Amino acid sequence: MDRRKVIKIAVGALAAGGAGVATLTNAFKTGVPPTAPAKKIDLDKTETNWTYSPLDPLSASELAYENYKVGSCMYGVSSSIIALLAEKIGEPYKSFPIHMMKYGHGGIGGTGTICGTLNGAAAVIGLLVDNKKVRDALTLDLFQWYENNAFPVFKPKNPVFDFIPPTSVSESVLCHASTTKWGKKTGYRIDSNQRKERCRRLTADVAAHTVEILNAYFENTFVPTQHDNEKVNDCMVCHGSQGKMGNTTGKMNCNTCHEKSLGHKIFGDIHYKMMKKR
Amino acid sequence: MDRRKVIKIAVGALAAGGAGVATLTNAFKTGVPPTAPAKKIDLDKTETNWTYSPLDPLSASELAYENYKVGSCMYGVSSSIIALLAEKIGEPYKSFPIHMMKYGHGGIGGTGTICGTLNGAAAVIGLLVDNKKVRDALTLDLFQWYENNAFPVFKPKNPVFDFIPPTSVSESVLCHASTTKWGKKTGYRIDSNQRKERCRRLTADVAAHTVEILNAYFENTFVPTQHDNEKVNDCMVCHGSQGKMGNTTGKMNCNTCHEKSLGHKIFGDIHYKMMKKR
Repeated sequence: MDRRKVIKIAVGALAAGGAGVATLTNAFKTGVPPTAPAKKIDLDKTETNWTYSPLDPLSASELAYENYKVGSCMYGVSSSIIALLAEKIGEPYKSFPIHMMKYGHGGIGGTGTICGTLNGAAAVIGLLVDNKKVRDALTLDLFQWYENNAFPVFKPKNPVFDFIPPTSVSESVLCHASTTKWGKKTGYRIDSNQRKERCRRLTADVAAHTVEILNAYFENTFVPTQHDNEKVNDCMVCHGSQGKMGNTTGKMNCNTCHEKSLGHKIFGDIHYKMMKKR
Repeated sequence: MDRRKVIKIAVGALAAGGAGVATLTNAFKTGVPPTAPAKKIDLDKTETNWTYSPLDPLSASELAYENYKVGSCMYGVSSSIIALLAEKIGEPYKSFPIHMMKYGHGGIGGTGTICGTLNGAAAVIGLLVDNKKVRDALTLDLFQWYENNAFPVFKPKNPVFDFIPPTSVSESVLCHASTTKWGKKTGYRIDSNQRKERCRRLTADVAAHTVEILNAYFENTFVPTQHDNEKVNDCMVCHGSQGKMGNTTGKMNCNTCHEKSLGHKIFGDIHYKMMKKR
């Protein structure tokens, strides 16, 4: 792939440097033309010396599923993509200290924070894309896809544990929330083989979709698939960096963990509606 | 440092492979002797080929503070430690693709999940320690130290923004919760220079403490400084992998985000007390 090629991305805000949740996600609304005209971005100045070559998503998912046993979720996703790149490109991928990625299992050392599959995918995106706005945009698209879709869907050729996991929509990118949601829906315990098989297949799903995103981005065909997260924006209108409160930051689904109090529902929402009318 | 040396750690459960939150954290209770006898762990089989050499915590904090401007929090912590090791040891640290670590800013691409300082520190621990139980124990000790202490405390020689930030106890390892808590206490907005200076100095604090943990571990003097997290254990007795519900996992402070419902308070707690009496 010609690395000096000017990368075209049909996302105005990305190039224009739109700040904040609202600007970024609005620009990415599927089917909605960006408010700013599409711009060419010359990534030469910021691109890394870790080149990319299009990969097969299915190969990534199969390898991620297989590698899960070595170092769990974060390792599964990142090692599958790095190994495929090492196979195609050689160095520096061959020397990448992939053992490092084991740290992300169970939401980082079992603490239950960020889902390891996403931490691994975001790390790989960080390795390949050094332009902050582009990197963040690809990462956000992946995170919202994970939050809003039912998983796992991957069907292994040779199942480690012969069980077809029911699916659930996690509504969260956090490990403990995602696994608990699945467990509540299916009735399987957190320490069950069924739950482990669910996470193993989810690892495959995230690896495949990360490759799809990277392929599209490096082939100049990346179009965000996720809609504006209305729930997040509803909160961020007041609480985000551009809002009157300006007291928080983030792009996770707020309502999964935070319920509005009655007082907030009455007074906050009236205020919000008044603001919207302006 | 003699890398073939048998690593002695006075933590029984660590070597004995105790599973679950309760076992692990009980064994680590400061001042409480571990229930299992102290065991020697030969890490030769699992140690990585990324050697360690004791570092100066103050140098790490100063460099992390300085590097924050290049790639924010995750980059600040990880690049400071890797750069100091590259200075002392050379390769493979010199070739480490440190630009990758920029992905963790603002809780990964601004999404507000895991605090980037901790993601960076955990990644470095993962790079240096390939024994899962040891790696997780060091990481948990760092995470709980972050959750339970008031930050920032670092005083830079040359402040980027001349402001001494008031401190706050985050009670959470998540970016959006940690920054919001600080903002609520101090009144500063999320997009203020004061908040950025707070995160810049917190980056320095985490880098220094990560080095302290690594120094102690590789000098065979590591003793966990954090107490059992009673709040987490209270929940995990029922909800954790060993509990009757067995529907979640994690070691984060639960109560920061989850409040018990009235029904849970009445019926759940009666049941919990009955279980405790057994």
